[in-house]
Amino acid sequence: MEIDIQFIPVPPNPIALSQRVVIVIDVLRATSVIVKALSEGAAEIIPVATIEEAFQKAKTFPQGTTLLGGERNSRRIEGFDLGNSPREYIPERIKGKRIILTTTNGTKAFDLVSSGKEVLAACFFNLRAIAEHCLSLEEDLLIFTSGDEGNFSLEDAVCGGMFIEKMVEEKESIRLTDAAVAARILYEKFKENLVEVFYSSHHGRDLVGKGFEEDLLYCAQTDIYEVVPIFRGGVIRIRQH
Amino acid sequence: MEIDIQFIPVPPNPIALSQRVVIVIDVLRATSVIVKALSEGAAEIIPVATIEEAFQKAKTFPQGTTLLGGERNSRRIEGFDLGNSPREYIPERIKGKRIILTTTNGTKAFDLVSSGKEVLAACFFNLRAIAEHCLSLEEDLLIFTSGDEGNFSLEDAVCGGMFIEKMVEEKESIRLTDAAVAARILYEKFKENLVEVFYSSHHGRDLVGKGFEEDLLYCAQTDIYEVVPIFRGGVIRIRQH
Repeated sequence: MEIDIQFIPVPPNPIALSQRVVIVIDVLRATSVIVKALSEGAAEIIPVATIEEAFQKAKTFPQGTTLLGGERNSRRIEGFDLGNSPREYIPERIKGKRIILTTTNGTKAFDLVSSGKEVLAACFFNLRAIAEHCLSLEEDLLIFTSGDEGNFSLEDAVCGGMFIEKMVEEKESIRLTDAAVAARILYEKFKENLVEVFYSSHHGRDLVGKGFEEDLLYCAQTDIYEVVPIFRGGVIRIRQH
Repeated sequence: MEIDIQFIPVPPNPIALSQRVVIVIDVLRATSVIVKALSEGAAEIIPVATIEEAFQKAKTFPQGTTLLGGERNSRRIEGFDLGNSPREYIPERIKGKRIILTTTNGTKAFDLVSSGKEVLAACFFNLRAIAEHCLSLEEDLLIFTSGDEGNFSLEDAVCGGMFIEKMVEEKESIRLTDAAVAARILYEKFKENLVEVFYSSHHGRDLVGKGFEEDLLYCAQTDIYEVVPIFRGGVIRIRQH
């Protein structure tokens, strides 16, 4: 079993991709929204690339079943029901609903890795659940960080590193690529105070500047949910055992 | 002044590239060869992508002026004068010569960044000289790591991190991207024992397996040369002030 991590959201090598289970990470904030929403009772999440696509897609479902969520420039999109703060995704608003989600980085990442063996969504909220699932699979893994507008994202790398740490603690024989070794070192640097990584990151500081500082503390919560979200046929649902 | 580092050898954003001074790093071993060879008296280095191109290019120069150097699968290429170990590039062999160099990762990197404002070659041997030069330029910088067959290379990231550390020590106001922050953390992990990074890296372990362990110790030497190699018009020479 090998773990690799890709730091930049470019299309992975297609052959490698088809042989790996992929874990998509966008801590700030798309995968945090996805994990929270599914854990709190949303029926499914449909990630789409554009705002136009989100409105079009919503029309194909019966009225009252679907919510539009996401952001541009970190802020809620005009005409949308929800922004991109996981704190908005509470049972009273989302229970039983389908959510069409479009964000700057995270929702595009699912497209890039859709031909992976399995495509899972992870953030600090559900790392333990994802690790337990992956340990049971015995497949090679690719952690795919969604990045910060195409660039390296420190918080996603550190979250990937925490996942790697959990995996290696359980199974020493796992091989790590150089990138995975690096992610683990980055996690080690922040493990005593995870929220610090957000204040060290470009996107984290940008969110603070836009009034979303509470989201940083919120998104640093670790292992508070047990769901394993899986992306299949364009839709993210809770994986059933 | 901002420092960015790109961890994967894919073409950088062309606009960003045209506005930055680029520092190419391939510690194991292309830029270590380049820095050593120029420091020990080679006239110039011509990096080329293929073996065929190397032989063709050599024919265009007068006999006796040119040497062929490089590797495939870490080993010297048949019909070539020199391999890719910096230890081979001694004055008795290379003084006054032009060297046509082709390697798996490093020589291709120069092609990818050729439209940078300036393109420099760095390794542990000459980091202080490169840092002094860059501090005098006051330009935004992109560190471009050559990678390990297209993948993240731990030793190149750590070398980039050491460069960043030197820069920030001299000038606190330098802005760092998330990737640059990460590289600095990776350097911090290995700074007490640099050679350890080679034993933690895929390419380093591969070189040990192929009998090049001495090259690891050799390439970990820091600030032993003062040259600033610059790539211009397809040729690498010592930059004159």
